[in-house]
Order: sequence, then C-alpha cells, then structure tokens
Amino acid sequence: MSTPEVPVPTLVGQSVVVEPDAVRILDRRVFPFERTWVTCRSVEDVAKAIEDMVTQSLGPPFAAAGGMVLAARSGGLDAVREAARRLVATRPTNNGIRDVVASLLEVAEAGGDVERAAAELAERYRAGFRALGEHAAPLIPDGATVLTHCWADAYLTETVAAVLRAGKRIQAICTETRPYLQGARLTAESLAEMGVPTRLITDGMAAHLMSRGEVTTFVTGADRVTMDGAVVNKIGTLQLAVAAQAFGVPFVALVQAPDRQAATADDVELENRDGDEVLHCLGRRTASSRVTGVYPAFDVTPPRFVSVVVTDRGRFAPADVGSYFS
Amino acid sequence: MSTPEVPVPTLVGQSVVVEPDAVRILDRRVFPFERTWVTCRSVEDVAKAIEDMVTQSLGPPFAAAGGMVLAARSGGLDAVREAARRLVATRPTNNGIRDVVASLLEVAEAGGDVERAAAELAERYRAGFRALGEHAAPLIPDGATVLTHCWADAYLTETVAAVLRAGKRIQAICTETRPYLQGARLTAESLAEMGVPTRLITDGMAAHLMSRGEVTTFVTGADRVTMDGAVVNKIGTLQLAVAAQAFGVPFVALVQAPDRQAATADDVELENRDGDEVLHCLGRRTASSRVTGVYPAFDVTPPRFVSVVVTDRGRFAPADVGSYFS
Repeated sequence: MSTPEVPVPTLVGQSVVVEPDAVRILDRRVFPFERTWVTCRSVEDVAKAIEDMVTQSLGPPFAAAGGMVLAARSGGLDAVREAARRLVATRPTNNGIRDVVASLLEVAEAGGDVERAAAELAERYRAGFRALGEHAAPLIPDGATVLTHCWADAYLTETVAAVLRAGKRIQAICTETRPYLQGARLTAESLAEMGVPTRLITDGMAAHLMSRGEVTTFVTGADRVTMDGAVVNKIGTLQLAVAAQAFGVPFVALVQAPDRQAATADDVELENRDGDEVLHCLGRRTASSRVTGVYPAFDVTPPRFVSVVVTDRGRFAPADVGSYFS
Repeated sequence: MSTPEVPVPTLVGQSVVVEPDAVRILDRRVFPFERTWVTCRSVEDVAKAIEDMVTQSLGPPFAAAGGMVLAARSGGLDAVREAARRLVATRPTNNGIRDVVASLLEVAEAGGDVERAAAELAERYRAGFRALGEHAAPLIPDGATVLTHCWADAYLTETVAAVLRAGKRIQAICTETRPYLQGARLTAESLAEMGVPTRLITDGMAAHLMSRGEVTTFVTGADRVTMDGAVVNKIGTLQLAVAAQAFGVPFVALVQAPDRQAATADDVELENRDGDEVLHCLGRRTASSRVTGVYPAFDVTPPRFVSVVVTDRGRFAPADVGSYFS
C-alpha cells in the first residue's frame, strides 16, 4: 500500500524567506484573503513585524533567525548582539525567539557563520516538527474529530500529515480565535488545504459539542511548556482544556520541547496586548463606544487539565515533562 | 440616605412598542451603532422579525404579544389562532413566546379583550423582572466584578439596578458573544448606560480571568430552566459555567420561572441557526472560503454546574427549582 501524499499547506511551506537583502514574511494578518508579503530590510523591520503580528505561532523564531542573519551580514558582533536584544524584546511569552536568538548569538560570539547556522537550525527545527507529528499521530484515532484552537502551525500540520500518512481519516473543528481569527483564517485554510473536512465554530461553542460527544480529541500547540507541565498558550486554551476535562475529551499539547528555564508558569511573562484589538474585528468596530477592551494574549493551563505533552522526543505525562532532558 | 437613581437603559426602556396600526421593534442587530426601528404591520412581519433576530432575549415575548394584538384587531378568532401558531413556530428554545401567546389565545378564546390583556401581561412581566432583580441582588457583593454572557436583558439590568439601589458598587466584564456580538453591543452599552464600569473580552478569555481571581460572580439569564434545574441559554454559557466551577466562581442563572412543561433538557428543542453566520462578523467574511460554519444557538448547562437559579419568587438551588410552583 502506498503512503498517501499529503499537501504542505501554504502557511507552512512559505512563511519566512531569507533573501540576500531582506527577510520576507507572509502576512498572516490578512491571509487567506490576501497573500501579501512584508519585506523587512533591517532588524528593526523584523522586530516590528513580529510585534505587529505579521507572523505568529512558529513564524517568529524563523523571522528572528532571519533578523540575526541580516545583522550578521551588515554589521559586526556588536550589531548581532544588539539585534539579539531587540528581537528577544519583541514578544515575551513564547520561548522560541529567545532560544533561536541565543543559539545564533553563540555562533556569532564564537566567530562562526551565522547564516549557515541559521539555515541548519531551521532544518533541525523542521525535522523536530516532523518527529513531533509522528509521536502525536498515534493519539488520534481513525475517524476522529479533532478540535483545535488558534493556529498551531507545523506542530499541527505535521501531526495531521502523520495521521493521514497512516491511512486514517479525520475531521477538524476550529475555533475562530478572536480577536485575530487565526482559527478561522489560518488553521481552517491550512487544514482544508490538506484535505481535512473542516468546520468552524465561535470560541464559546466547543463545550457544547464536547458535551454531545462530538469531539474526539482536543489538540493545540503550546507557546511554552513549563518544567512542571503547565501549558502556556493562546488565550482560550485554558477554557477549552477545562471543558475537555469535564466532558472526558483528552487534551493533547504539542511543543518541540519544554522550557528548562521555566520551572513553573510564574517564570513566564504573559503578554498583554492592546485592549482595542478586542473592540474590533477585521478593523471594524464591534463594540459599544462606552466600554474598554481587555486582551490578555495567553493563558496558563495547569497540568491537571493536560492529558499529554507531545514533543520531538516523544509523549510525556505533564508531571513527567522534565524527563525530556534526561 | 436617599436611594441612588439608576437610569433605565435604552434597550429595556424602548424595545417593543405596540402602536395603533403596527408593532415597532428596536433593531438589536445594529444597536448601538444605529438606532433604527423595524415596523411590523402584520403578524407575519412580527414573526419574521423574531426569526431574523431583530429582537431577542426578552424582546420576542413582547413582540409576540404585539403580534397577537395585531391579529385580534384585524381579524376574528381564527386569525388570532393562526397568529398564535405562526408566532410560536418562530424560535423554539425560549419558552417566553409560547407562554405569552398561550395566555393571550386563552383570553381570545374566552371572548376577552386581547389588547388589554397584552398590556396587563406586559406589566406583570415587568413587575416579575423587578422582583427577580431584588432576589438576585443579595448574591452580588459590594465591590464585585460580575461576568456576564450574551444579553440577559431586564433580568440583568433589574439585578444591577437593585444592586446599585442597595448602594453597592460593582464592575462588569462582558463576553462579546459571537457571532451576533450581543455582549459587545447590547450588554456592554446597557451596563455602561447604567453607570457600571464595563470591560469587554472575547468569548475565550473568561476562564483565564477566573483562574486569576478577577471574577466574583458569573451571571446570565436563561432562555429556559427545566424542572430538574438545567439551564438552557445562549451558546457559550455551558463553557463559562464549567470554567466557573473549576475556579470556584458561583454561577447565578436568572429566569422568571422554570418551565413546568420541560422535565429535563430532552424536552427542549435547541435551535440551530445558519452556520454561515459563524463565518461572518458584522456582515464581513471572517473565515477561509474552504470551511463550513456550525451554529448551535443554545447549550444546556447541567444542574451540577449551576450554583443558584433566581426567579421572580426567589432563589432556588437547581435541584429544587420545582418548588417554585408549590
């Protein structure tokens, strides 16, 4: 039996491109309605693009690596050090930028080739995503309906690809993920590109479907997994994980590796974004002019609401994620 | 000490008006951005307005009463019977339309004055809302932050009015309540009109705030409460109630009376609306064109997730709502 060919979705295949004089980033703020690229000619351009959500999920570490390459090309070690500081300061919750930047700064400090190191790092990350997908796929049975939240990027698409390569058929339900609609735009488009029948719900509907037995597995990425097994991810994950537990639906969190530098969630800075974003949808005002918006961008799901953490080295019970490093 | 004056919000004070030749309904689909009225000159116009969400929450029973008055004015008993059938068929989940229509049909069958009966019924309902608010207010402490979902109409505003009359100061957090944004538009505007500092969140954010101790009480209306204490309400209520329980926040459900005709939630038809509504926000497409939308409009919160049901006759533990009638 031949392995089914699984298309690589646009957002994963073409997201960040490092060119001779610029880093080009596919603009996820308008995808899939428009397919436009933001051209970053300086580290500052890259940093602003990350802050302004031109790319998110697994995009920023690749963009940050591109920023480090720009710095290494145009300046000396001081420029690379300054780039590292600026890029790490963009968004604090996901440890991906920090780790990539630290790794490339180390190469620069040792007099190595940052550009080659960045390319090798990207390849290692991509291999990690594939391994993670292979480890996650056995958790999703044939015929499953998978609920997902926000856009888990290659963590999710490699998992789905491994599921499909194993000959299993699945359906997906995406939450729209307000205010940016990553679920409605990025995840829904990407899963559909992969041939998965995909339905969309608003962010409040999942518990109802779970209570009716219409969800097999709840799967998200994690922006950070702490050493005690807490899952830091896009706001809304906690609410869905609590509902999943109440209705007996397993919650599978996907992350390349837990973060050795975060013993608990107290060590993670949760980004707060401009509350005005909550008062608008696609640029149009949604709310009474008499109110203020609140936009905590991430939440923390305590380990008691997490069924399993899947990494590039295998599956771990949340209490046992520390053994990733042993 | 004088009792503070509490303004009556626009949506409660001016929602459905029965005029000599028409029923005029404030269009909640565009409030507060536009303040326009839909003029219904026939029972069919009223029925369509209810189906099309021109009014919702506690609006439809008043609109249906207006429809019955139009039928009684222009036709005989057969016209009133036909109006009753048409109006009850509009939306099935809330029992308010059914109860109001049955009450006025009984008057018509007995040869009574439907118009006077409708006016008296409206006054009785309004007195019931005030009584409900007085029973609910003691559950909300001074300094509370009240989380609410969707638009609980006079149930909520009478509760808040009673809280404020008692000299307590509170804050509110509204979920935006996609896809129609009743929370962002109707609730947020109305609470702010009453002078309550009001913040808005998206539908996935509440559990995070609860987990941080930032919510004192979760309060919603109920479209129906069954005799075993289940709360049928706007989709999203279940997910919030499950989170509230997980984080020790009491869930207070407001309803004039439980429904004697619904022993359990199996006796309640849950309306499914057009999934296309989930794929749009304020008329603009939000989602990938490759996906379909799903829009279950209501959900069922089992009694184990409900702290207390407040009615016009007092407060009841969910298991004890049947004693409302004894």
